[in-house]
Amino acid sequence: MELLEEHRCFEGRQQRWRHDSAVLDCAMTFSIFLPPPIDGKKPPVLYWLSGLTCNDENFTTKAGAQRVAAELGIALVMPDTSPRGDAVADDAQYDLGKGAGFYLNATEQPWASHYRMYDYIRDELPALIEAEFSVSDRRAISGHSMGGHGALIMALKNPGRFSSVSAFAPIVNPTQVPWGQKAFSHYLGEEAEKWQAWDSCALMLASQAEDAIPALIDQGDADPFLAGQLQPAVLAEAARQKAWPLTLRIQPGYDHSYYFIASFIEDHLRFHAEHLFR
Amino acid sequence: MELLEEHRCFEGRQQRWRHDSAVLDCAMTFSIFLPPPIDGKKPPVLYWLSGLTCNDENFTTKAGAQRVAAELGIALVMPDTSPRGDAVADDAQYDLGKGAGFYLNATEQPWASHYRMYDYIRDELPALIEAEFSVSDRRAISGHSMGGHGALIMALKNPGRFSSVSAFAPIVNPTQVPWGQKAFSHYLGEEAEKWQAWDSCALMLASQAEDAIPALIDQGDADPFLAGQLQPAVLAEAARQKAWPLTLRIQPGYDHSYYFIASFIEDHLRFHAEHLFR
Repeated sequence: MELLEEHRCFEGRQQRWRHDSAVLDCAMTFSIFLPPPIDGKKPPVLYWLSGLTCNDENFTTKAGAQRVAAELGIALVMPDTSPRGDAVADDAQYDLGKGAGFYLNATEQPWASHYRMYDYIRDELPALIEAEFSVSDRRAISGHSMGGHGALIMALKNPGRFSSVSAFAPIVNPTQVPWGQKAFSHYLGEEAEKWQAWDSCALMLASQAEDAIPALIDQGDADPFLAGQLQPAVLAEAARQKAWPLTLRIQPGYDHSYYFIASFIEDHLRFHAEHLFR
Repeated sequence: MELLEEHRCFEGRQQRWRHDSAVLDCAMTFSIFLPPPIDGKKPPVLYWLSGLTCNDENFTTKAGAQRVAAELGIALVMPDTSPRGDAVADDAQYDLGKGAGFYLNATEQPWASHYRMYDYIRDELPALIEAEFSVSDRRAISGHSMGGHGALIMALKNPGRFSSVSAFAPIVNPTQVPWGQKAFSHYLGEEAEKWQAWDSCALMLASQAEDAIPALIDQGDADPFLAGQLQPAVLAEAARQKAWPLTLRIQPGYDHSYYFIASFIEDHLRFHAEHLFR
């Protein structure tokens, strides 16, 4: 691992690291915020998954999360959104290829050789974080848009792995919307049956009651992608049917930007803290 | 004026505008944060002047200032750091020309025709802001690095104009350091006597006791520019001699980045609020 940057921030440390990912077969960059120690305890970790076109720095520089993370004693880990590098397949459009990994394991070429973000986020990265940094093994997960989809499928597919999950403007039903249908058809092939394993609504409807964890979703009602790509109410209805403790908040006037995330990230951190420190 | 962007943010409005500047003879872009109304009162305005290479978006997206500005009821105005456009003289280096206006009125060619950021920030922009937005005529000013220099000279040269001034890692003594000497020699010519009118330390030593306003400076001690370009203790000593109420805080471990600004911007906003609402 190579330390690329370090900055003092709210008495903690904001760092950027590069490491060689065996799962993705390329070099990857992630950012981490290590809060100042509280009573000598190892902090739990909130993983943040970013949206289309983002890398590890969008949330790091724009969300203003470090202030509350420092106060609460939560480490923040911000991975990249896809494999990177000249050897990695890409597409000219913003919603496929680099910056658009969709947090799944691709089965189709040319994607299958590197696009395994699900395994990377689920296994390789947490193992690295817990081995290399002084953090606890308590984890929560959150994300924005494509990263909200990522956070939700990570939580739904891995009972017991996270103590809580939250999302801002997530893609909850990718099998039914253009962003998801395009990505899934390229990464997973045209057989739509296979897509269900990566769709939060389908996963929610197939979930067991004992696996439910607290979930919080914020959605701006001025988000231009709300009707065509997001529709979080579909997941909220599935959660209701399965008695999952999911809270969906509609925030009047807010859009899809980091100004929206910055406005409500404190609520999400306090929500996760309730469960991380239980 | 043309509205380029608008986002809801902490219940207020984050906007980006383009207008034609008569003073600078070019189109200019600024950002403004309008807090949610408190008791129907018009908010006072904090002007933020950014540093080398920045435009109106650096502070807007990275400082996390809107949260506290919304709570306190302070409007934030973020201008650009130089004139812009194809007709404007530039230099290949980052510390001269576009992005490096140094908040002065240039007298030398090719700079003199557009580089009049002092008049723009002092007169044209506040007149525009106070005419076009529902804000009061109470003003404070702050900035970072080159923008800290800008905030300090604005306050020192214009008694009564601002109720308080603050800065992060400001260039306080530009006539004595490489960034200032380079910029001043190009913008103002080689006659160093003329430079004194744009040097906070010289202005402080020439100031009248009755013109003093509260001043707050934060400086990280891990800032790589501290010894060679910044040296805020020189201004603190001048302030002590003139009995100016200037507080210089040295923040251990902090560097020159926006992570430093984000960590302490809340203190600056609360400091300005004390005087803006007096």
